[in-house]
Amino acid sequence: MTIKHTVLSIDTKGKGLYPFTGEIEKWLQNQAIQNGTLTLFAQHTSCSLVIQENADPDVTLDMRDFFERLVPEETRGYRHTQEGPDDMTSHIRSALTGTSLTIPIIDGHMALGTWQGVYLFEHRRVPHRRNVVAQVMGV
Amino acid sequence: MTIKHTVLSIDTKGKGLYPFTGEIEKWLQNQAIQNGTLTLFAQHTSCSLVIQENADPDVTLDMRDFFERLVPEETRGYRHTQEGPDDMTSHIRSALTGTSLTIPIIDGHMALGTWQGVYLFEHRRVPHRRNVVAQVMGV
Amino acid sequence: MTIKHTVLSIDTKGKGLYPFTGEIEKWLQNQAIQNGTLTLFAQHTSCSLVIQENADPDVTLDMRDFFERLVPEETRGYRHTQEGPDDMTSHIRSALTGTSLTIPIIDGHMALGTWQGVYLFEHRRVPHRRNVVAQVMGV
Repeated sequence: MTIKHTVLSIDTKGKGLYPFTGEIEKWLQNQAIQNGTLTLFAQHTSCSLVIQENADPDVTLDMRDFFERLVPEETRGYRHTQEGPDDMTSHIRSALTGTSLTIPIIDGHMALGTWQGVYLFEHRRVPHRRNVVAQVMGV
Repeated sequence: MTIKHTVLSIDTKGKGLYPFTGEIEKWLQNQAIQNGTLTLFAQHTSCSLVIQENADPDVTLDMRDFFERLVPEETRGYRHTQEGPDDMTSHIRSALTGTSLTIPIIDGHMALGTWQGVYLFEHRRVPHRRNVVAQVMGV
Repeated sequence: MTIKHTVLSIDTKGKGLYPFTGEIEKWLQNQAIQNGTLTLFAQHTSCSLVIQENADPDVTLDMRDFFERLVPEETRGYRHTQEGPDDMTSHIRSALTGTSLTIPIIDGHMALGTWQGVYLFEHRRVPHRRNVVAQVMGV
């Protein structure tokens, strides 16, 4: 059995979904693992990892906007406000969407459906550099 | 170490939670793995996988109805509307509940609690055939 | 390859986030696994597992309060009410935040970011004893 990992750096420029399916597939091709499990893990509490439709870019814009409505940026009702109105709401959005993904590897590729892509969901307003651990275990 | 996978086909008939704990346990019995990890992965962006109470069927009905209120079907506020009013909302509900589950295998069985069952949560109105990858890795 | 598991018992005293990063790290130190994957799995349908900020305790209080607003305790609109007004809402909050976490193990430690901690999110009002399965697989 082989275990390999890398840490991807993803630069974000404000709220929204940033695709990185291609980066993961490229890295995976060099690991010589045919069957196993891939874990993706964001080392942050104000962004998240989601699988979403990779076809119509409007989907990711609608997703971003929906979370603005679901978890409105307001300081009323919050204690943790010293890091700006978008910090506590980012923690909440991160809890709602999750910071890790587990994806089966079959025949050397992620077993994604036709329309699935892997995205980092940035919840903060200003640019950030985000670290995503990718770890694969298999044979 | 052994790695095995299968793809389950689950037919859905509109929104709601569809149990498939039994199908997984049955498949697992034939894999001869005593300890390891099970990954369940839905290859779609408009349904999700959740663990929920397996006792009172009202729980799954209430769950379904709550998501109608949390993510109302309306075209106002959305760009991605050409696939019907239930498509973008399905993507959002899928992001909120997740498309993969990781469950420890102990002594040959999923380490579920007494009241836990595994469900596919269908978010679209019309019937669909859904693919769920089940992959187990262990000894 | 080594596979080990334990079951942690976490006593909760009403709604809120209960940290258990230290307990996991302590257990992990005795498993002699340098690289692999950790699965955490709550065997319940009315609490969940989340990764959240470990610095300002106000974050966990704001998180708790937000879910009171997102999934209000009310019997109107629910069928499953015989276990109290906080039971069905707990199932929903559990579906929204998830009952399992997957965390890479690198160099013998969880690959958490600087500000990340592991929490059990209790959704019921009265005290509960919660079981969390921790399973590590690696070399």
